[in-house]
Amino acid sequence: MDKILDKINGTEDLKKLNIQEKKELAEDIRELIIKTVSNNGGHLASNLGVVELTIAIHSVFDAPKDKIIWDVGHQSYVHKILTGRKDKMPTLRKLGGIAGFPKQSESEYDSFDTGHSSTSISVALGMAVARDINKENNHIIAVIGDGALTGGMALEALNHAGAMKTNLIVILNDNEMSISKNVGGISMFLSKVRTRKFYTESNRYVKKVVSMLPRGGNFIIRFIRKIKYSIKQLLIPNMLFEDIGFRYLGPIDGHDIEKLESILKVSKELDGPILIHVVTKKGKGYKPAEENPDKFHSASKFDIETGESLVEKPKDYSAVFGEKLVKIAKENKKVVAITAAMKDGTGLDEFAKEFPDRCFDVGIAEQHALGFAAGLAKNNMIPVVPIYSSFYQRCYDQVIHDICLQNLGVVMCVDRAGLVGNDGETHQGIFDLSFFSLVPNITIMAPKDFEEFENMLEYAVNLEKPVVIRYPRGGEGKNKFQTHEKIRKGKAELLQEGNDLTIVSIGKMVDRAVTISSILGENGINAEVINARFLKPIDENMIMNSIKKTRKVVTIEDNIIKGGLRKCY
Amino acid sequence: MDKILDKINGTEDLKKLNIQEKKELAEDIRELIIKTVSNNGGHLASNLGVVELTIAIHSVFDAPKDKIIWDVGHQSYVHKILTGRKDKMPTLRKLGGIAGFPKQSESEYDSFDTGHSSTSISVALGMAVARDINKENNHIIAVIGDGALTGGMALEALNHAGAMKTNLIVILNDNEMSISKNVGGISMFLSKVRTRKFYTESNRYVKKVVSMLPRGGNFIIRFIRKIKYSIKQLLIPNMLFEDIGFRYLGPIDGHDIEKLESILKVSKELDGPILIHVVTKKGKGYKPAEENPDKFHSASKFDIETGESLVEKPKDYSAVFGEKLVKIAKENKKVVAITAAMKDGTGLDEFAKEFPDRCFDVGIAEQHALGFAAGLAKNNMIPVVPIYSSFYQRCYDQVIHDICLQNLGVVMCVDRAGLVGNDGETHQGIFDLSFFSLVPNITIMAPKDFEEFENMLEYAVNLEKPVVIRYPRGGEGKNKFQTHEKIRKGKAELLQEGNDLTIVSIGKMVDRAVTISSILGENGINAEVINARFLKPIDENMIMNSIKKTRKVVTIEDNIIKGGLRKCY
Repeated sequence: MDKILDKINGTEDLKKLNIQEKKELAEDIRELIIKTVSNNGGHLASNLGVVELTIAIHSVFDAPKDKIIWDVGHQSYVHKILTGRKDKMPTLRKLGGIAGFPKQSESEYDSFDTGHSSTSISVALGMAVARDINKENNHIIAVIGDGALTGGMALEALNHAGAMKTNLIVILNDNEMSISKNVGGISMFLSKVRTRKFYTESNRYVKKVVSMLPRGGNFIIRFIRKIKYSIKQLLIPNMLFEDIGFRYLGPIDGHDIEKLESILKVSKELDGPILIHVVTKKGKGYKPAEENPDKFHSASKFDIETGESLVEKPKDYSAVFGEKLVKIAKENKKVVAITAAMKDGTGLDEFAKEFPDRCFDVGIAEQHALGFAAGLAKNNMIPVVPIYSSFYQRCYDQVIHDICLQNLGVVMCVDRAGLVGNDGETHQGIFDLSFFSLVPNITIMAPKDFEEFENMLEYAVNLEKPVVIRYPRGGEGKNKFQTHEKIRKGKAELLQEGNDLTIVSIGKMVDRAVTISSILGENGINAEVINARFLKPIDENMIMNSIKKTRKVVTIEDNIIKGGLRKCY
Repeated sequence: MDKILDKINGTEDLKKLNIQEKKELAEDIRELIIKTVSNNGGHLASNLGVVELTIAIHSVFDAPKDKIIWDVGHQSYVHKILTGRKDKMPTLRKLGGIAGFPKQSESEYDSFDTGHSSTSISVALGMAVARDINKENNHIIAVIGDGALTGGMALEALNHAGAMKTNLIVILNDNEMSISKNVGGISMFLSKVRTRKFYTESNRYVKKVVSMLPRGGNFIIRFIRKIKYSIKQLLIPNMLFEDIGFRYLGPIDGHDIEKLESILKVSKELDGPILIHVVTKKGKGYKPAEENPDKFHSASKFDIETGESLVEKPKDYSAVFGEKLVKIAKENKKVVAITAAMKDGTGLDEFAKEFPDRCFDVGIAEQHALGFAAGLAKNNMIPVVPIYSSFYQRCYDQVIHDICLQNLGVVMCVDRAGLVGNDGETHQGIFDLSFFSLVPNITIMAPKDFEEFENMLEYAVNLEKPVVIRYPRGGEGKNKFQTHEKIRKGKAELLQEGNDLTIVSIGKMVDRAVTISSILGENGINAEVINARFLKPIDENMIMNSIKKTRKVVTIEDNIIKGGLRKCY
């Protein structure tokens, strides 16, 4: 049988379909996504959750004239499939292929590049205001998850947008999850709203909607009457989003294309900032993902039948971090852990089980995570805060202002440092050595292997000063390091003596340095290999003495040149 | 007549006073603050606004056992006066004197160092959780203004705190202002709440409060009945703060010590996170400040009788920025300006009057400011965003992720760069050259004088790429520069030829370089003086040629050494 998807080469084809065909299309798209991700890896659960929503959006709105901003952007596969890129799906997240996130360079339908969370409302508001100034006429739609909504940037934007008269549609994709189970007061609030009864059984809400409508009363009234019994709780008065100036529509079943299209059409007719509350299920339509949305948030190649991963995952730094922290915390009652919605990703699941009262998931809220850590440290606790390198960029001021200027003992664990591969440029952790090294009172380390990492973590927890340990995505290198000297402040480790050349390296790249040195050795060049261990304070003594001896130096690091190892002495 | 303040050497003395004496004390404190700030400069309006609130807090709570976190901290003068530092007030903001912000190094009553906005709830929550883990028993109080509440970090913290069962008291000091008039949906909401009628004339709210109380019913009921008619709207159900898990008390008159003490006592008896909404008036009790709270937010030495400044304020970079931007915007309709609650401080007042539809105050929300700018830039506008150097630390990820990775034409104007003097370490703008220079696709400039600044602004607005101009607090230097070569990308300016030594300088420090070179000249040393203009791309050609000639180089910049001019080539 022919698939509906075969006929869809762009949004104009989609608009021709009837509801039944769209439902079939949804299944075709699910199949394609599951197939693609099972081969290439990628974000599965979030994309399966927005199949109907994306179909409805592209049915009702006219992209690329209308602009859709996908918050975070990992849920944009359906959008890519519907906007002319279905045939490129086999290249997803591969070199030269299509990206796992929206990319303006790929398609005019991708109106803004995203990757980090909580940016979409700000960007959409900027576009909307520009549209007004330029007297253009289109719709701007931000699609944001309930997890991303707890990020400070999104909340700042809601506050500003609520006070503007600009037409702006925010679609809250509420799947009760950020990446892990969502946390916080807003989440509790959304959960209450989801379970509320009908706001009214009378026509009151219809009248209220109609009173908000700018024009076309009769048609609209008829239209709304028609959808009345299918859209529950069209309006709930006096609640959070309305308090700050938004018009709230919802909650609505995010897997019912018909209802979604209805409410989106209503939103097109309303003025000012609108928030549409859509309830979806992560992993919808693929049982293993529905049952384990965390696991299928970002998946490697897997078996479609069983959902089992086909990639043997060697032990990684995040796992070593989690195991070691549990051991440390058993001995040291002061140790607490904080995660910004990345409990699994950062290896904290065991810790959370073992010490539920000492593990805090603050939601996607890196700034607060560090301020919270500062308060804990000030009150005699030892907070350990694993955050991905590129997300530490979100809390730079807190590192400086709340932790380091006050010299507080917070252990900042920088996971996913260095190049991370196929998530693309927004996720590369290549700036951290540089931007941390500018900060006063800070100590910066990076381990060459798991054992050194464990030693560094032990050292950091006992330091009682601001300290960074940065470590890569994935596992350790191929060289087996036999010796593990005790960690001493600012002391590098001499791994190999030599007279012809000095190689200074740090972290993951020490493995590379050793490999290179043995190739050089085979060619008669005797390199001296130094594992820097500390970027700050750097072991100037050992490094300068070596350079004086060899007169030649090479540095190897997985960070931009500027401000990293090469430029630090 | 003896003053009450003469008898107050610590909070234990305060606790002995009756209400009438406390009212007199409030006037004594106001007098001392006005006198001090009229001599030393400082934050006047915010401190006059919290005199009664601070008296009430220290009457009801037991610092330093109970911890008070002053958000931003510029309103901590009253607190300092009441906690043993009244005799040091003449040294306020002077070398070796007491700081204008809380400092743990000064007093055990200062429980956390603040300076930047919106950190207090995070820190207080951290302290509260640590207290619970350590099974200690004290109160943690965050005092935050309605302006600071719009900062993303504060909103992230509210979201997290609302879902915790931890005892935590947040006092919202609502003065309808951040530094300028407050903006945004939350502000609109607070304004609605302030003007609401009594929630109920019956006893319903008393019953509701009582039902929340953990113990001591009878006493508490009597106590609450007593204050019932004085505290309006003790409880408003189903509103923003309650939606996300806080118990809301207020709004209450922030200049009525008796009522304040009553409600603070109630809050001590409640469990979980409490938000107390206190309405105060900035500048209260000093007419010039009540009428011009903006002007008296941060004041220089002034005449107490008239309120007139006694410091002749020479034209400064912020003013030049504002004037020039108005001129540019008249010619170029695409130019828009964004401020994060610093319209006056950054020189945008004229622009806002001239182009109300192209000037956006987003509130204290630097992250959103840059995301919003990115959206505007993407839709063909030219956003110009003046933010103080130390607050640009707040939006580092947005600089990288939303602007520079996408190569969007946002003009980032970094005001108050370099050393800013008596506001202390949290306000120094000494990191920006370094952290901006790490970012790809960025251009970084700094002008030697006003005319060069104007030329750079003109250049930046037409660049259509991410660009930073950093300029200092205050005016230009003493040397009059005659020539102003056209700004060319990455081209430095040779100010003086010489053979003995190369001096490379940038921005404000070029003036210093010229002065030094003339002193050197008098001593027979001919220095070559280069005005770098661009830190990125740096004019390697001119600089290296000069160094090859002179064989000696000195760099002068008002930024940390690491990552700045000295380390950039």
